[in-house]
Amino acid sequence: MITSTSNQRAKQIVQWQTKAKARRQDGIFLAEGLKMYEEAPEGMIREVYLTEGLLQHLKSRQEKASLYIEEKLRKTGYEMVTEEVFERMSDTRTPQGILTVLRRPSHELPQLLQKDRPLLVLLEDLQDPGNLGTILRTGEGAGITGVIMSKKTVDIYNPKTIRSTMGSIYRVPFLYVEDMEGTIRILREKGIRVYAAHLRGQDYYSGFSFVEGTAFLIGNEGNGLRRETADLADCYLKIPMEGQVESLNAAIAASLLVYEAHRQRNS
Amino acid sequence: MITSTSNQRAKQIVQWQTKAKARRQDGIFLAEGLKMYEEAPEGMIREVYLTEGLLQHLKSRQEKASLYIEEKLRKTGYEMVTEEVFERMSDTRTPQGILTVLRRPSHELPQLLQKDRPLLVLLEDLQDPGNLGTILRTGEGAGITGVIMSKKTVDIYNPKTIRSTMGSIYRVPFLYVEDMEGTIRILREKGIRVYAAHLRGQDYYSGFSFVEGTAFLIGNEGNGLRRETADLADCYLKIPMEGQVESLNAAIAASLLVYEAHRQRNS
Repeated sequence: MITSTSNQRAKQIVQWQTKAKARRQDGIFLAEGLKMYEEAPEGMIREVYLTEGLLQHLKSRQEKASLYIEEKLRKTGYEMVTEEVFERMSDTRTPQGILTVLRRPSHELPQLLQKDRPLLVLLEDLQDPGNLGTILRTGEGAGITGVIMSKKTVDIYNPKTIRSTMGSIYRVPFLYVEDMEGTIRILREKGIRVYAAHLRGQDYYSGFSFVEGTAFLIGNEGNGLRRETADLADCYLKIPMEGQVESLNAAIAASLLVYEAHRQRNS
Repeated sequence: MITSTSNQRAKQIVQWQTKAKARRQDGIFLAEGLKMYEEAPEGMIREVYLTEGLLQHLKSRQEKASLYIEEKLRKTGYEMVTEEVFERMSDTRTPQGILTVLRRPSHELPQLLQKDRPLLVLLEDLQDPGNLGTILRTGEGAGITGVIMSKKTVDIYNPKTIRSTMGSIYRVPFLYVEDMEGTIRILREKGIRVYAAHLRGQDYYSGFSFVEGTAFLIGNEGNGLRRETADLADCYLKIPMEGQVESLNAAIAASLLVYEAHRQRNS
């Protein structure tokens, strides 16, 4: 039982919560809450921190989900911490009382390209952690086979991103690439059509076929795609906008595209 | 020029920023930033607060947009405030230096139903201000004719909602209703088909026709639709979800539905 906020492990968690660099150096990420623990692949779990309050709560409920979590806790092991220590360790305002430290998955481009008719989302310099998490979540729902991000895209292991993935971080393969232009060239050589979501697109997205290998290229929230990157796409597409709307939120735009691909692939 | 944070008008703004009740009693809402001022209908503008820094910035730029704003400022009038006072008045971390006080628009149900083939979004107890704002923004893009919200839905005049509408708050008609069930009955009497987005839906949304008068009913982020409300819909529809995704973010779900309606109405 960790009872003091000056405990070394408690201090380590606080550092991981606040410093992207420390998380990166140690090759870990943090996930809070029961759902994120429940869905975590056991092979990725490194440490689990739990409050007495949550453990009692789980034991008092004889539900299937609670029993599953208790069984999983026995397998993965866990460390008890006081409520006070947990509050310090937590990134959320109303912590549930469970925090998991996980090893980072490592995905490679060849693995993402092995799938039959890949459906990829390419993100260039996306900055909002919530948008990134939502794209993973919606992307899994639409059956995408991977997310490829430029180096300057927001940290996918940001606690806010992790939360908003609702567990999809464990299941959707993703990778950061140094060279987005080179990556686009490789995709095209493999016969994957690359579509740039672009305000200058002439044709609406629903007019294209996304049944074969497809990659959607989405730019930064404020500035859109860099010209050099957009120019490498097979074509531009645009999302129709009525009224005086000038653009859509990046996560909304990505969601419309991947679900249109899903609709076409399943009809 | 307001130079002191204890100025009565500065104090009034702070109260409006933080207290939904004060905004409601005075029949106003606040909008920050140049874009929100630029797009505000002149008839709705009651007061404008501006920093010297922003005014100088506008004057130094001989762009069309800056000239348009200077001209609009002459027409609507404005009050200068110091940077220090503005920071206190502002809800944002990096204020642009312009804050507009606006009269609330008043929309009524009969007006929303007059349109040819209405396309409505009905929100029951939505709680996230960002989601609500995003639904207005994407909704305008998809050509919806209005948003109807249950009384317990988050305050549409919340500063975070206003920001995330990106100006759509000025253009999409919306209203809060005391009696969502009664409202659904009226819509159905008018021949509008009401579709409940529901995890128990049997059929995928893209299998329905939304070409005639349509209303999409979206529930609370955590709990979904109340059963009494969902039961009043003409039918349930569901969004397909691959992988282990259990639900989508409410703004994403609403966006997929309204854009599917747009696709059908324009193809």
